[in-house]
Amino acid sequence: MDSDRPVVRLARSYRFSAAHFYWDPRLDAEENEKLFGKCANRHGHGHDYRLEVVLQGVPNPETGMLFDLRELDRTVASALLERLDHRNLNHEVEFFASRQPTCENLALYAWQALAGRLPAGRLEAVRVHESADLVAEYRGPRG
Amino acid sequence: MDSDRPVVRLARSYRFSAAHFYWDPRLDAEENEKLFGKCANRHGHGHDYRLEVVLQGVPNPETGMLFDLRELDRTVASALLERLDHRNLNHEVEFFASRQPTCENLALYAWQALAGRLPAGRLEAVRVHESADLVAEYRGPRG
Amino acid sequence: MDSDRPVVRLARSYRFSAAHFYWDPRLDAEENEKLFGKCANRHGHGHDYRLEVVLQGVPNPETGMLFDLRELDRTVASALLERLDHRNLNHEVEFFASRQPTCENLALYAWQALAGRLPAGRLEAVRVHESADLVAEYRGPRG
Amino acid sequence: MDSDRPVVRLARSYRFSAAHFYWDPRLDAEENEKLFGKCANRHGHGHDYRLEVVLQGVPNPETGMLFDLRELDRTVASALLERLDHRNLNHEVEFFASRQPTCENLALYAWQALAGRLPAGRLEAVRVHESADLVAEYRGPRG
Amino acid sequence: MDSDRPVVRLARSYRFSAAHFYWDPRLDAEENEKLFGKCANRHGHGHDYRLEVVLQGVPNPETGMLFDLRELDRTVASALLERLDHRNLNHEVEFFASRQPTCENLALYAWQALAGRLPAGRLEAVRVHESADLVAEYRGPRG
Amino acid sequence: MDSDRPVVRLARSYRFSAAHFYWDPRLDAEENEKLFGKCANRHGHGHDYRLEVVLQGVPNPETGMLFDLRELDRTVASALLERLDHRNLNHEVEFFASRQPTCENLALYAWQALAGRLPAGRLEAVRVHESADLVAEYRGPRG
Repeated sequence: MDSDRPVVRLARSYRFSAAHFYWDPRLDAEENEKLFGKCANRHGHGHDYRLEVVLQGVPNPETGMLFDLRELDRTVASALLERLDHRNLNHEVEFFASRQPTCENLALYAWQALAGRLPAGRLEAVRVHESADLVAEYRGPRG
Repeated sequence: MDSDRPVVRLARSYRFSAAHFYWDPRLDAEENEKLFGKCANRHGHGHDYRLEVVLQGVPNPETGMLFDLRELDRTVASALLERLDHRNLNHEVEFFASRQPTCENLALYAWQALAGRLPAGRLEAVRVHESADLVAEYRGPRG
Repeated sequence: MDSDRPVVRLARSYRFSAAHFYWDPRLDAEENEKLFGKCANRHGHGHDYRLEVVLQGVPNPETGMLFDLRELDRTVASALLERLDHRNLNHEVEFFASRQPTCENLALYAWQALAGRLPAGRLEAVRVHESADLVAEYRGPRG
Repeated sequence: MDSDRPVVRLARSYRFSAAHFYWDPRLDAEENEKLFGKCANRHGHGHDYRLEVVLQGVPNPETGMLFDLRELDRTVASALLERLDHRNLNHEVEFFASRQPTCENLALYAWQALAGRLPAGRLEAVRVHESADLVAEYRGPRG
Repeated sequence: MDSDRPVVRLARSYRFSAAHFYWDPRLDAEENEKLFGKCANRHGHGHDYRLEVVLQGVPNPETGMLFDLRELDRTVASALLERLDHRNLNHEVEFFASRQPTCENLALYAWQALAGRLPAGRLEAVRVHESADLVAEYRGPRG
Repeated sequence: MDSDRPVVRLARSYRFSAAHFYWDPRLDAEENEKLFGKCANRHGHGHDYRLEVVLQGVPNPETGMLFDLRELDRTVASALLERLDHRNLNHEVEFFASRQPTCENLALYAWQALAGRLPAGRLEAVRVHESADLVAEYRGPRG
């Protein structure tokens, strides 16, 4: 085994509960409902999201760890969970003022919020699970 | 086995996504936040709920079934899911105009909505799972 | 705590995969389809069942165990799993020659197969999970 | 972020219940049982399958969505679920008349059924989960 | 509905990771292995336990809650999780110095630790899930 | 479809329960606790691990299978499960005498133990799930 420099991936999951709805302000109510179905209800509905943060790299030989999980937890909490958990994504998260809060866009948002706060090249992917049956993944601008 | 009249229980699960928040209008913002924490955010947040409907009785000997599941599905859809799924519980469900939309109260609401639409004595319990780690159960006024 | 003789419940899960279909031989094809929907397809379809066996009693003070799990596993395997796993319930299990293989009837079958092979009073309930969203429970002729 | 043209992946899950068995008609019963074990029981057994359809591409900037999920649901229902759900794969699906209905072959079948009905390049992978512990993935002829 | 005083049940789950092994000091190594199988390895092995705490009572009409969850979380953390999580049950928990750390005995231990710290009659049951397939329940000395 | 030689991936999961702790012998107790938190408790704690073995290749056209699962099960049992299940990783697995038993290192260990016992090129990845929320993956020295 080329075990001197083995590259490993590590995925850690976080959870947050948020409300959202889909609405295009250039369309009227009927058009929005046609486009987005019951997700166009502006009173909002909600989900229990699972966010997976996938890191890659060579583990530290002393600790056997790719990254200090307590540091990762703090970074994810301050960069993402505090802004998303128990929030209305449409009304309280700036990024979604001009974008629909789909899980695709949540993955882009999570990457943007995390990539700069982690060592270069460490973040490999983010995945946003809106439910057990729907998940979006973003692997970065080169991915 | 006293299999002529065996009493069986059957639990069927349904899912709905809804937004909610906790707020007592007699209290000010600070008091609400002290009482309800981040759930007091009136922009709302949300959950993917699982509703379990538990029936009991003697299965029909011809069909081997306690209850026709397609009929149960229709009843639960019209009595509950259409009113709760993709809704804001505080703003769109009358029952919660004067009650907090906790899972305890959701269980009371679900019982009230279903018991009268099912044959007498058939409904044994309703359970509302707000998450994998929190579930409320109501077994009716005698239970 | 009345801990000299504490009564504890223990639930252990087993899994089996089986094929089945619903068909009443006194009805014609159209009537069967009306009654049972796509479950009336006599080519059969299938499920991954989970069987929960619930025991009750006072744990043995030396082992701290209500029942020897290896013995329970052997009993459930010989009394149930060997007869149900990778079988067609309609064609290969005598009990279902004259009953629909619903999860209600599977619970009755499991009770009948197990109760006599366990010490009197030990078996409290059997639960047959046909899917994550449908489960039948039988608590015995007195239950 | 090169967010003008971010490539995102989206995985959506569908479920179906089917019966199957493994049998090579050129072998006799003993040889089939040696090769396939209890899966060689021609009465069939069954599973609750989960099918994951993985799409890739640039989300629509107006809707924030990679693909209209209602359209995807209709396509998967007509191309796959209606042919597989509550069916016996060996007896009722032409593709398996000459191939064993393993999850590997189900993944090939699902790709073949879906790829031509989706915009070119959109389908990235299909995954067929036969159980919580066994999943096959096919990423297409170039994959 | 007798909704003035509806009795509701609420189950909340907690998780802890612990090591344990089974060993009867009055028996020799061979006898222990015969009795407990590979669980008799005194180097220990471990599990990720799920503890369910089930309360019952009439919800507070103002909050709609049976019990303040933050208070419950604090009570369970100090009475149980701090003593069990990331511990070796045999070596670090006094209760198991003279009892095998089975899930049956963990349920008795959890009841004993919690019942006196909650209002009289509030605790209805504790359940200790040693795995997805094995769970013990204790409903108290009267239960 | 280029279905003459379709390359398919197959992931199969195995489970084991083990105890472990993190400790660097060159550091004192205080430094170890600072570095590893409550994982530095040398009495050990434990987890129920899930090991995913991912194979790739062209399925056998006769069996429709990428690999004989019974053979894979035997290989994984003898190469890994018998050495890890119901074991204390620190005290009983040589590989971890000089490495921390993190899930990153467990993935490296599992690859090393399996790759040589499978046909060249068949093993694509191993994943070690320490919990539902933490998983490490190793794709080999070229991966």
